[in-house]
Amino acid sequence: MRRLRMGMIGGGPGAFIGPVHRFAAELDREIELVAGVFSSDAGRSAAAGESYRIDSARAYPSLEAMFAGEAARDDGIDFVSIVTPNHNHLPSARAALAAGYPVITDKPLTATLDEAHQLAGVVAAAGKPFGVTYTYSGYPLVREARARVAAGEIGTVRKVVVEYPQGWLAGPAEGKQAEWRVDPARAGLGGCIGDIGVHAFQLAEFVTGLRVTELLADLGSVVPGRLLDDDCSILLRFENGARGVLLASQIEVGELNGLRIRAYGDMGGIVWRQEEPNTLTISRLDGTCTLVRSGTGVLGADAASRTRTPGGHPEGYLEAFANLYRDFAAIVRGDAAPLLPGIAEGVRGMTFIHKAVTASRENAGWVKLED
Amino acid sequence: MRRLRMGMIGGGPGAFIGPVHRFAAELDREIELVAGVFSSDAGRSAAAGESYRIDSARAYPSLEAMFAGEAARDDGIDFVSIVTPNHNHLPSARAALAAGYPVITDKPLTATLDEAHQLAGVVAAAGKPFGVTYTYSGYPLVREARARVAAGEIGTVRKVVVEYPQGWLAGPAEGKQAEWRVDPARAGLGGCIGDIGVHAFQLAEFVTGLRVTELLADLGSVVPGRLLDDDCSILLRFENGARGVLLASQIEVGELNGLRIRAYGDMGGIVWRQEEPNTLTISRLDGTCTLVRSGTGVLGADAASRTRTPGGHPEGYLEAFANLYRDFAAIVRGDAAPLLPGIAEGVRGMTFIHKAVTASRENAGWVKLED
Amino acid sequence: MRRLRMGMIGGGPGAFIGPVHRFAAELDREIELVAGVFSSDAGRSAAAGESYRIDSARAYPSLEAMFAGEAARDDGIDFVSIVTPNHNHLPSARAALAAGYPVITDKPLTATLDEAHQLAGVVAAAGKPFGVTYTYSGYPLVREARARVAAGEIGTVRKVVVEYPQGWLAGPAEGKQAEWRVDPARAGLGGCIGDIGVHAFQLAEFVTGLRVTELLADLGSVVPGRLLDDDCSILLRFENGARGVLLASQIEVGELNGLRIRAYGDMGGIVWRQEEPNTLTISRLDGTCTLVRSGTGVLGADAASRTRTPGGHPEGYLEAFANLYRDFAAIVRGDAAPLLPGIAEGVRGMTFIHKAVTASRENAGWVKLED
Amino acid sequence: MRRLRMGMIGGGPGAFIGPVHRFAAELDREIELVAGVFSSDAGRSAAAGESYRIDSARAYPSLEAMFAGEAARDDGIDFVSIVTPNHNHLPSARAALAAGYPVITDKPLTATLDEAHQLAGVVAAAGKPFGVTYTYSGYPLVREARARVAAGEIGTVRKVVVEYPQGWLAGPAEGKQAEWRVDPARAGLGGCIGDIGVHAFQLAEFVTGLRVTELLADLGSVVPGRLLDDDCSILLRFENGARGVLLASQIEVGELNGLRIRAYGDMGGIVWRQEEPNTLTISRLDGTCTLVRSGTGVLGADAASRTRTPGGHPEGYLEAFANLYRDFAAIVRGDAAPLLPGIAEGVRGMTFIHKAVTASRENAGWVKLED
Repeated sequence: MRRLRMGMIGGGPGAFIGPVHRFAAELDREIELVAGVFSSDAGRSAAAGESYRIDSARAYPSLEAMFAGEAARDDGIDFVSIVTPNHNHLPSARAALAAGYPVITDKPLTATLDEAHQLAGVVAAAGKPFGVTYTYSGYPLVREARARVAAGEIGTVRKVVVEYPQGWLAGPAEGKQAEWRVDPARAGLGGCIGDIGVHAFQLAEFVTGLRVTELLADLGSVVPGRLLDDDCSILLRFENGARGVLLASQIEVGELNGLRIRAYGDMGGIVWRQEEPNTLTISRLDGTCTLVRSGTGVLGADAASRTRTPGGHPEGYLEAFANLYRDFAAIVRGDAAPLLPGIAEGVRGMTFIHKAVTASRENAGWVKLED
Repeated sequence: MRRLRMGMIGGGPGAFIGPVHRFAAELDREIELVAGVFSSDAGRSAAAGESYRIDSARAYPSLEAMFAGEAARDDGIDFVSIVTPNHNHLPSARAALAAGYPVITDKPLTATLDEAHQLAGVVAAAGKPFGVTYTYSGYPLVREARARVAAGEIGTVRKVVVEYPQGWLAGPAEGKQAEWRVDPARAGLGGCIGDIGVHAFQLAEFVTGLRVTELLADLGSVVPGRLLDDDCSILLRFENGARGVLLASQIEVGELNGLRIRAYGDMGGIVWRQEEPNTLTISRLDGTCTLVRSGTGVLGADAASRTRTPGGHPEGYLEAFANLYRDFAAIVRGDAAPLLPGIAEGVRGMTFIHKAVTASRENAGWVKLED
Repeated sequence: MRRLRMGMIGGGPGAFIGPVHRFAAELDREIELVAGVFSSDAGRSAAAGESYRIDSARAYPSLEAMFAGEAARDDGIDFVSIVTPNHNHLPSARAALAAGYPVITDKPLTATLDEAHQLAGVVAAAGKPFGVTYTYSGYPLVREARARVAAGEIGTVRKVVVEYPQGWLAGPAEGKQAEWRVDPARAGLGGCIGDIGVHAFQLAEFVTGLRVTELLADLGSVVPGRLLDDDCSILLRFENGARGVLLASQIEVGELNGLRIRAYGDMGGIVWRQEEPNTLTISRLDGTCTLVRSGTGVLGADAASRTRTPGGHPEGYLEAFANLYRDFAAIVRGDAAPLLPGIAEGVRGMTFIHKAVTASRENAGWVKLED
Repeated sequence: MRRLRMGMIGGGPGAFIGPVHRFAAELDREIELVAGVFSSDAGRSAAAGESYRIDSARAYPSLEAMFAGEAARDDGIDFVSIVTPNHNHLPSARAALAAGYPVITDKPLTATLDEAHQLAGVVAAAGKPFGVTYTYSGYPLVREARARVAAGEIGTVRKVVVEYPQGWLAGPAEGKQAEWRVDPARAGLGGCIGDIGVHAFQLAEFVTGLRVTELLADLGSVVPGRLLDDDCSILLRFENGARGVLLASQIEVGELNGLRIRAYGDMGGIVWRQEEPNTLTISRLDGTCTLVRSGTGVLGADAASRTRTPGGHPEGYLEAFANLYRDFAAIVRGDAAPLLPGIAEGVRGMTFIHKAVTASRENAGWVKLED
């Protein structure tokens, strides 16, 4: 069974997430990066292609060129991966789907909710596989947490706290990674909330299996001159009445990538931390507290199948990301991979961003997530 | 210099906090428990006196009896410590002050804000030392954190997150400790917010040196049949515009006493966790991250003077509590102890509880802390 | 039931361990410090008495004076606590026992093994209660570990690793605490091994319930000019054939008081760390890993009875030390307290120190602990 | 610049380390697996080739076939990677070098010291690049530790403690991974010491830049019926007189892959733990304690160049392993990569294993590492 061939859109010189998608796609050898439009600047696209060590003929200057060039080959690409800033997600995805390719895109789905709805229509009409890389749902122990909550280990969920503290945007936003994220023209409606808050939102729904129905958002732009939010405090209600808190910030100096989720039910509690991702803590009403460690025999099937090394050999961010690409490859091949977030989760994330930003701006108090 | 003599009100059989006050008062040998009204039931008061190994004649059945009995002795009590459920704080303190005694009381100050204001008047009129045992402000590294923030180590504070998760009331509230805390007649207006939320509030103001000016409160009663709040999510604004979040819960299964405070400024961040209280983490914009460890030479004067053992010999809850009594003893002897919370902090805590409970009940959105 | 009255020998101005014994003795209000020979210098003894706030008449200049003075009182001391440097343990204990008092002494038992044997004879002849404060066996979770190993939770013990890293003597030994510890005339035969290695040894036997039968010792004096050992590596064999390693050092910069014990059997493993003393980790062959947390309902009777606060309220070094005094008070009152180390454990510790020092000096390879 | 083409020897169905080498080789896209002799059984080799998704014609049944087949291609392999059990390292490497290929091999270098010396001769004669995958020296923060020690941050090294606890062989050795490791015919002279002890040894020399000159070894076979060692306690002396301890065990139930190194000098101390590999702790005599965190601006050049993600995005075992392959690729391309272990480090590891096993067997006490 041959490797699937991937064409990348975005990921040019200086990019962070482009190489990450490449690592992730190729880790399990199900996929190979063979082509790309790494930049809208032809020279920069070529330079990136060289850095990725792909055939120089396949580092294209435009989407049109790539789709035409690849269609003409026997060994053309099988799907497209979109890793641009947010505002390019919709046009890139639309073009790729129109050209007949399955698409996997970075999150958030688009720059605005309206774009998200447009894209949902396009995806539905295209009937091609479509995935969204909410990275953290690829961690084995996140899947373990989800499975255990679903199996009733903590009982009925009553409270969820999900936090995503970072500090790297506490000063002026300098450098390629920072600049576009604080620019409404490229990032879209949300700053911190679109960059990381939406990860926290997706994680909360993914782990609990519950949908958020209402929220109360308080977003701030703390760094002087910042146009988008950089600090978010959001209260949540879930469909079963469970209470929730979602905190995301990019101005908390000293915090690196401290995503953490805690879910509490009437029988137990469960805690996972992204910076120590190979341990899950489960507590019960009777005072017992258990550590579920990656790579040990206590893991369930979902988690075990997404772990590559024995216990104590740390797997991290790239491996989690690779699990999403393994799922996507399965779907492209016609198999099932029900845990991969798709267009619905993508739209849902945009709905969350939109509602949080607008409700906060209007100081609207509690609002329904979906009208 | 002789030990000060303490009379205790409350702390009868089955109490948790009474023995804690006794440990704390006596640890530094500045104070000795010699008398008490440990219960309003004479037999139970006597039994408790025996358990504390005090002179049986000094385990009194009533406040009147204690004040009369002690006044008649050459070696009578020097001050009174109040460790009853909240609803007895005001009458106990009023009587003790009327009898001429300095008073130290457990938190929250009273059962209601109205009582707090009454007590403030009584304290002002009495002109006697008055302290409130917000335990966590007694930890050496909390004082270190306060000193470092005040010295500008993290720059201008922009964000504060204070969390106080517990899980022990996730099931039915059984046992002496649980029962009164969920009973409005004894606990007063607040459940979780009065029991632990107020600690978090005081800690946030203590560490940052900033006053909260506004809040948005979302309190819930999660356990079926519970009359008071058991889960609190509160957004804060501080006087300098800093944003804040205060979370307190008693239904988070597996959490023991996970009080944690994180403060972030424009130059750095600082983190302290009650369950590992002997380490403080300080980060700076440049990526450096330092551990300040109790008992080492890097501590400032405030913290060093409240530490009893060399580094690596864990001090904990009782030692922190004892620091408050050491402060109180200093005040009773006529010395200064500016870090001990007093009537103002007590009233402030009640204001917080009152505002949070009423604003949440009315779903009032953002409200000013003080009208 | 009145408090027992304690007379202290040692603990003068600048002492660390004297105040610790006082804290520990008095914490549970079973004991009260009332008298002492805090220094062989009368003025210093009086100054210390003042700092302890005891009756100035009872801060004595000599053992003779104390024993005479106390015997003449109705409320004289009930027992003696010895907290001097090691070389004074034997004469102090002999005199106290001769005067008819029960004795509790700091470790190591004496300065030399010969003295230890002498003291054992004296104790046997006196027939009075005698305790040795191996502090760490007072920690609730150490007792929990012992109970669980005894109950077979980890199966047959096959391997024990006990480490005691410190760094405070990595530089020149300055200050009262450091100076006597590196002086053979006051510390005796052992430096690091007598100060902390013996704690590790006792802990290993205490937790496993197994006796060390052989050892291979490699002791070094790393700091230039140091006369006694400051770094110890010792291999062990236990009576059942289990293998062991004991490491102790006082030159490991950055280590504070990092005592840690790990015991592994054929069915499980158990780990305890002094610097985070309120959690015990237990693992099993099947990959499960459980945290036993102090103050929760999962503790056994031994540990639960030696815990004073609910889970999450950290107890530490002073509380552990107090558990030894609670045990000793029980024995003085005629009750049983089988976990308190006594003269046998004291002699055993000296045997260990003696064998380790002499075997290392002679580069003797494996030697039997007891000839 | 095209990717280098790798041929693998070993790594057949059920292998753990084969896929790890493949992940590691390909992660940075400098190398591509294109061929292999994955098993000496032709059917199994073909099956493995399929699982790796390589051209079926290039999954060879024998070394001879591979070397002949690849030599006949324009796009033949550039180098060989050896991932077999130890006893096949020598014949595989000899054949590959004879066929003119650079070689990278898993550790330990060979099954016996004699073989290691033979291989050293072959390597010297061949004059081709040769690398040994001591995985842990590929971790960015291990390289940071090495650089900081070399720069004098902890002063003159005086003490090194390196531990490598595992528990997975505490029971009967079942499964492909376990079986060959406990079989002298395939593992060679050492069991635990060859499997993991040699990692600890290499790490100690790598981080400190000091060579071990003497050792005292105590190796045991704890599990009934085990023929090779499964528990190792070794005392060390370094060339500058520094004292050391090396512990390795595979019977410590609950330990996963707990490699940890601590080095202490006269000015500071440094600690790294493999299971939390993205943080390095550095302490100084004055009590300061600093956390060096991967992906932050405080890293030196060596570490920064071997990190792929921003701080807080955990990198782990596969990424560390990939750093060795990146080094090897550089060497194959003619660049320098001085930190990659080569034949000298391979022989040195075998010398260590040989000396430890023989000295322990003879109970020889202290012996020189090299005669």
